[in-house]
Amino acid sequence: MTAPTENAVLADLRAALPAEAVVTDPAALGARSQDGSATPPTGAALALVQPATTAEVSAVLRTAHAHGVPVVPQGALSGLAGGANAVPGAVLLSTARMTEIRRIDPVDQVAVVQPGVITRDLVDAVAARGLFYPPDPASYGISTIGGNIATNAGGMRCVKYGVTRDFVRALEVVLADGTVIRTAPGTVKAVAGLDLTGLVVGSEGTLAVVTEATLGLLPAPGPDRGVCATFGSVADALDAANALVASAHRPSTLELLDDVVLAALAAYDPDAGLPVGARAMLLVITDEPGDRGAQDVATYAAVAREHGAVGVDEAHDPERLHALMRARRAFNQAMRAVRGGSINEDVAVPRTRLPDLLERLADISAQVGLPIGTGGHVGDGNLHPVIAFDPADPAQVTAAAEAHSRILGLAVELGGTVTGEHGIGTEKRGALVGELGERVLAIQRGIKQVLDPTGVLNPGKKL
Amino acid sequence: MTAPTENAVLADLRAALPAEAVVTDPAALGARSQDGSATPPTGAALALVQPATTAEVSAVLRTAHAHGVPVVPQGALSGLAGGANAVPGAVLLSTARMTEIRRIDPVDQVAVVQPGVITRDLVDAVAARGLFYPPDPASYGISTIGGNIATNAGGMRCVKYGVTRDFVRALEVVLADGTVIRTAPGTVKAVAGLDLTGLVVGSEGTLAVVTEATLGLLPAPGPDRGVCATFGSVADALDAANALVASAHRPSTLELLDDVVLAALAAYDPDAGLPVGARAMLLVITDEPGDRGAQDVATYAAVAREHGAVGVDEAHDPERLHALMRARRAFNQAMRAVRGGSINEDVAVPRTRLPDLLERLADISAQVGLPIGTGGHVGDGNLHPVIAFDPADPAQVTAAAEAHSRILGLAVELGGTVTGEHGIGTEKRGALVGELGERVLAIQRGIKQVLDPTGVLNPGKKL
Repeated sequence: MTAPTENAVLADLRAALPAEAVVTDPAALGARSQDGSATPPTGAALALVQPATTAEVSAVLRTAHAHGVPVVPQGALSGLAGGANAVPGAVLLSTARMTEIRRIDPVDQVAVVQPGVITRDLVDAVAARGLFYPPDPASYGISTIGGNIATNAGGMRCVKYGVTRDFVRALEVVLADGTVIRTAPGTVKAVAGLDLTGLVVGSEGTLAVVTEATLGLLPAPGPDRGVCATFGSVADALDAANALVASAHRPSTLELLDDVVLAALAAYDPDAGLPVGARAMLLVITDEPGDRGAQDVATYAAVAREHGAVGVDEAHDPERLHALMRARRAFNQAMRAVRGGSINEDVAVPRTRLPDLLERLADISAQVGLPIGTGGHVGDGNLHPVIAFDPADPAQVTAAAEAHSRILGLAVELGGTVTGEHGIGTEKRGALVGELGERVLAIQRGIKQVLDPTGVLNPGKKL
Repeated sequence: MTAPTENAVLADLRAALPAEAVVTDPAALGARSQDGSATPPTGAALALVQPATTAEVSAVLRTAHAHGVPVVPQGALSGLAGGANAVPGAVLLSTARMTEIRRIDPVDQVAVVQPGVITRDLVDAVAARGLFYPPDPASYGISTIGGNIATNAGGMRCVKYGVTRDFVRALEVVLADGTVIRTAPGTVKAVAGLDLTGLVVGSEGTLAVVTEATLGLLPAPGPDRGVCATFGSVADALDAANALVASAHRPSTLELLDDVVLAALAAYDPDAGLPVGARAMLLVITDEPGDRGAQDVATYAAVAREHGAVGVDEAHDPERLHALMRARRAFNQAMRAVRGGSINEDVAVPRTRLPDLLERLADISAQVGLPIGTGGHVGDGNLHPVIAFDPADPAQVTAAAEAHSRILGLAVELGGTVTGEHGIGTEKRGALVGELGERVLAIQRGIKQVLDPTGVLNPGKKL
């Protein structure tokens, strides 16, 4: 792009937005150019804009569309795949000023929010009305609803409640040319059109910019109560996890941590109170109220023992349980602390293939000579193998890249996916055609073309 | 289409399929040309084909695509919107010979089936393995999984479990040109691509032909137990319904029948044991096992009484409950019996707008001078107002059409949809742009164009 065009774009943006909503300071742009992934941006952005309203988002897109300038929608930059990274000459469209919770309705059981609302703020606001928004990605304390929608974020409660898409009833979005549309009426059921809502969810900012979301809610659950069980083998832990998923009262959280992760967490946070020396741990939580929750905890403990648990801690103290959950959420950071660098994978396979996955991960770790700690949402078959390496050692960097590539191939080979909840972003684009196939990828690019014919929305990401 | 082309199409179909799988007898075609709606087909079909395998479906589509002949995918013809009706010169593609249940896996909790499997057969087969497929459209005894997927079928259990889309993990589909693709890997979570699975679900055969579905299952629930509560006003029944949805233990079924429906059902099936003389009835069911189910029934009875129920029958006898459910399923037929003809609407609105909906329906009934009986899935805000009329009386036919049109407009006016679960088919195409808007409809047609560029798949339906 030539400088005169850049100046024209900036002039148009400044004409459309309040002065403080258009930022061009290089340091400010640099700080907003990379998400939580290890993948650097592919170039420097032209500007950061912070619209507060749908009309302002529409004006930004009209301007970008008219000039053929790329737009990168951004939430909290907590993504893990480079999906919100800057691309050369881009307008970074931050939702940081779109933080209004517009409606919480206990009868319709919906919340209507702007995309910049922090997930935890929504969770707290609906809880104050006796309601519940289940999706809880590990980053929910900082991530935004818009970012959760862009990635179809998962979390620890998916095993019982499903993913972000399952709670998005309808969206207001701005199309690439600035047109504002609504994807659905927002009723519980609606089959008049094709499912545009579900199509936008998980599209990583490549199809449209979400400006308002109508989210389904549930009645508030009971308190979290649970069991922390340790096992002498990963195979026993996997058997126990499958039995728990098959039980009549599915846990609201069912997380696995292997011995590499447990050791890393013990070093990272010695006060977390995690068990040490076990080969694997399951964290099993119920959120059923009253007697039902107590029954569930007893059932979970019994199932764990039947499947060879060597230790079963019923975690009656809520503080103890929350400490375990906090420790679990820190698992990626703990693995990074082992050698200074980490690659956080996000594979999902059918539950029947989990034993194969864990065995083959151990093989890969031995072959490349790097620790790989695995944990995550075992009830969904969605695990996060984390490769630890020293970023200052070129041999380890190469070995980590090799392990990364093998793990992605392994996921597809086992009938699974290279990403269960983080997304493709820039980091995994190379693995996309291997998973989807040429024809499916062509269809998806065709759909992108329908919604964004000039390709201004988040180019170089996902598809 | 000219006769030589017709002959060439038939020759190609006969070359590709077993002899008995290509039917051209006019009586046989006539019998397969209209679904359960009142809307007649727009023309005569050329042939009925009954492929048994994905390869045969692919051959049918290659042939149709090469000749530019329309293809109408058909399941059991139990649809209610004309979606499977014949169009002029069409190849009717029946899934009647694609009835294989290929896999039921209790660990992965999936069933892999061909599209012609009858919904009840799947439900029974998975129940025999201790598993549960929740979607239960009223037609589930005759409808097919392929038809359920085409319409994103609902049913009585949606209030707790969601709709068909929520249970479709992945699809094998044949594209318009005969290419076979898979939409997703079939894991619980998968975010690599755009959501093609969800896009095909509910597309009424306009995007692709489903040849295999990977369906998510749950552990078997407990027995159905429930409450039949009667109310002196519809407003009381709606208040009770909202309170039940807001309770900690959501019913697995929550159905409303108004006084017009109750009177029609009493006349249609005097042995059903439905309450008479009430202004409205709620059928509230739990499928929680053990003590939890008993607690739920007591809670539901208490909530009904708190909201002014004049009669509360705890239906401890399972036979009694099943008789009530059978009667509920016969509600459309009972309304048809009132005057010989009926139009079965399928509106959904936010639950907060249900009182307005019911009031306005009474106004429309009075204005057009025809009985309108309303019942259905009140917990989802998805009700079926049924207009009863004498098809031999032109004035009543006109009045019914007027009521139909007003009801569709009313649904959109109240922030809802003209179809919650039946689909658009041919019957409601006129209402589509009013609900979606021009731009959204154009996007949906653009997506159709990507998947079916020559428009051979179910033309004149839905979009």
